[in-house]
Amino acid sequence: MAGETVITVVGNLTADPELRYTQNGLQVANFTIASTPRTFDRQAGEWKDGEALFLRASVWRDFAEHVAGSLTKGMRVVAQGRLRQRSYQDREGNNRTAIELEVDEIGPSLRYATAQVTRAASSGGGGGQSRPQQQQVSEEPWSTPGSSSADAWSTPGSFGDDTPF
Amino acid sequence: MAGETVITVVGNLTADPELRYTQNGLQVANFTIASTPRTFDRQAGEWKDGEALFLRASVWRDFAEHVAGSLTKGMRVVAQGRLRQRSYQDREGNNRTAIELEVDEIGPSLRYATAQVTRAASSGGGGGQSRPQQQQVSEEPWSTPGSSSADAWSTPGSFGDDTPF
Amino acid sequence: MAGETVITVVGNLTADPELRYTQNGLQVANFTIASTPRTFDRQAGEWKDGEALFLRASVWRDFAEHVAGSLTKGMRVVAQGRLRQRSYQDREGNNRTAIELEVDEIGPSLRYATAQVTRAASSGGGGGQSRPQQQQVSEEPWSTPGSSSADAWSTPGSFGDDTPF
Amino acid sequence: MAGETVITVVGNLTADPELRYTQNGLQVANFTIASTPRTFDRQAGEWKDGEALFLRASVWRDFAEHVAGSLTKGMRVVAQGRLRQRSYQDREGNNRTAIELEVDEIGPSLRYATAQVTRAASSGGGGGQSRPQQQQVSEEPWSTPGSSSADAWSTPGSFGDDTPF
Repeated sequence: MAGETVITVVGNLTADPELRYTQNGLQVANFTIASTPRTFDRQAGEWKDGEALFLRASVWRDFAEHVAGSLTKGMRVVAQGRLRQRSYQDREGNNRTAIELEVDEIGPSLRYATAQVTRAASSGGGGGQSRPQQQQVSEEPWSTPGSSSADAWSTPGSFGDDTPF
Repeated sequence: MAGETVITVVGNLTADPELRYTQNGLQVANFTIASTPRTFDRQAGEWKDGEALFLRASVWRDFAEHVAGSLTKGMRVVAQGRLRQRSYQDREGNNRTAIELEVDEIGPSLRYATAQVTRAASSGGGGGQSRPQQQQVSEEPWSTPGSSSADAWSTPGSFGDDTPF
Repeated sequence: MAGETVITVVGNLTADPELRYTQNGLQVANFTIASTPRTFDRQAGEWKDGEALFLRASVWRDFAEHVAGSLTKGMRVVAQGRLRQRSYQDREGNNRTAIELEVDEIGPSLRYATAQVTRAASSGGGGGQSRPQQQQVSEEPWSTPGSSSADAWSTPGSFGDDTPF
Repeated sequence: MAGETVITVVGNLTADPELRYTQNGLQVANFTIASTPRTFDRQAGEWKDGEALFLRASVWRDFAEHVAGSLTKGMRVVAQGRLRQRSYQDREGNNRTAIELEVDEIGPSLRYATAQVTRAASSGGGGGQSRPQQQQVSEEPWSTPGSSSADAWSTPGSFGDDTPF
C-alpha cells in the first residue's frame, strides 16, 4: 500500500482494549486513544490542557492479543498507523463517516513508566494471553498487515556491540 | 519550541542503552535504533531487506532511567522525537555534523512482544531502577523537556467507560 | 502548544477553497483534501486505488488568502497540520464529532506540476489576491498561529552558496 | 517498500536546486533544506531562533525538473520523504555516513507566498522547463519512485462539488 496517511499519536487509553474474533477466527482489538495537547498560558505562567483528540484504533491478529494482554485503561501509549475512513449509517439512517486508526506499531510510553518486555512465541499462539471480552464480530480486517509475525524482532543478534554507533 | 522536525522511527536497538550522568547529575541514556525497510521482490515473490537506517538517540532525566531499565539490545521499539544536528571535530580536526534523535516518547513495540507495564513512582526517584554503566558525562542536554514527570499518565480516571467511543 | 497530533497529508482538493471572514474580519479558508492510497495487486500485476480519506481542512489569516489565491479544485497538495476534533449537533440533535486538519503548512505538490512562486507582501495586505465567495462567518479560529507573517521566508540571504551542503 | 522512516520537513532552500543527469540520462535534483525551530524566551518575551537542521535532499526524473524549474534559493518549502543513510569515504579514507532525504512530495509553502501552478505535460517531457547546471553524474538513484508521472493529478474531475464535505 502506497500513499496512505501515516500518523503517530501519543495519548492515553480511555478503557481496556476489547479483544474480539471475526467469523474467520481472526483476532481484533479495539480501543480509543485520548491525546491531550497542552498550551503554556503566559499570563497564568502555567501549562493548561487543550481539547483532547479521541481516536478510535484497531489492531489485528497476534498483535491484537499482545495489545489486549499488555495495555490497560489509562496507560500512555505511542502508536503509529494509518488513518482510515469508514462509512456507516446512524440510527436515523443518515450516512456518516468516521476516521479511525489502523495501528501498525504501538507500545507503552516509557516517559512515566517502566516495562518488562517478553518476546512473543513465534508459534503465533499466544495461548497464555489474557482474552478479555471475547465476542464474535462480523467485521473483516481492512487489510492484512504486510509483515509476518514469525520473525519476532528481526535478528537481534546481527547488530553487535562493535557497531560504531 | 516550534518548527522542529518531528519524526517517528520504528526499529531495533543495536545494543543496550547506556545510562550516564552529566556533571549536574542529570540522567541521560544513549542508544542506536536500526530501522530496516523491506521491499517486495516481484520476481522472487518475497520480501527482501533494504538498507538499514541507524539513528543515534538520546533521552533525559527519569525518562532515561525508565528506558535503561526496560529496553535491551535487539528489542523492537517505536520512538518519536526531534531531529537534531550536532557539530563536532573529527580526529583530523575537520568539522563534521551528525544527525541524532532527541526522544520525546519511546516504547517497546507490541507487534512481536508483550509487556508488563509499571507506572513510575511520582517522586521521580526511580530508586529501584537498574542503572547499568554509570559514568559521568560532561554534555549538557540540548533542551529541558517541556513536560514534568509528576503527572504520571495524566488522570486516567477521567476517561470513563461511558465515553461514547 | 505541545502534544498535538501532527500529521502530513498528500492528496487532491475536492473543490476550490472557500475563503470567508469571521465577525472580527479574520480570514479563513476551508477545503477538503482527498488522499487515495494505492495497492499493488500481485495477481493483476498492477496498482489499484484504495479507499480515499477525505479530510476537511482550514487555514487562517493571510495564509488563507494565499491558499485561496493559489490552489484550485483537483490540485495535488502536500499539507502539514494538527488533527482537531470538533463537537456539533446534527439535525436530529445528536451530539457528533468531526476530525479536521488545522493547517500549518501547505503547498502545491511539484510531483506532476510546476509553480511560479511569489513572496507575499510583508504588509499582510494581499490586496491583489482573488477573494472568491466572501462571506461573513461567526466561527472563531481555534488558535492563533504561532508565527507572524512578517518575516516572509526567513532571511534567505543568510544561507550563502559557501555552505558546505 | 515498507518500514521506511518517513518524515516531513519544513524549511528554506539554502541554494537553488542543482539539476543533473545520471549516465542513463535520468534527471536528479539535489538541494539542502534548512529547518530552523523557534523557542519562546519567557524572560525576553520573544521568539528566538534555535539551531537549524540542514538536510540534504534529492528528487528524481520529471519531478526533479519540476523542482529545478520552480524552487529557488531562500524559498520556504514543505517536503515529505524517506530518510536514507549513505556511506562514503572522506578525504582521509575514513568511512563515514550521511543521512539524507529521498523526497516523495515537495511544494512551495503558501504561508508567506502565493503560487501559480501549472500541471506538467503528461508526455513526461518537460521540454519547456529550465535546466540549470546540467551535468552528467555517475550516481544511480536509490530507488525508482513507485508512481508514474502519467496520471498528473489523479482524475480531478471525479470529485464533484456535490461531495458532502
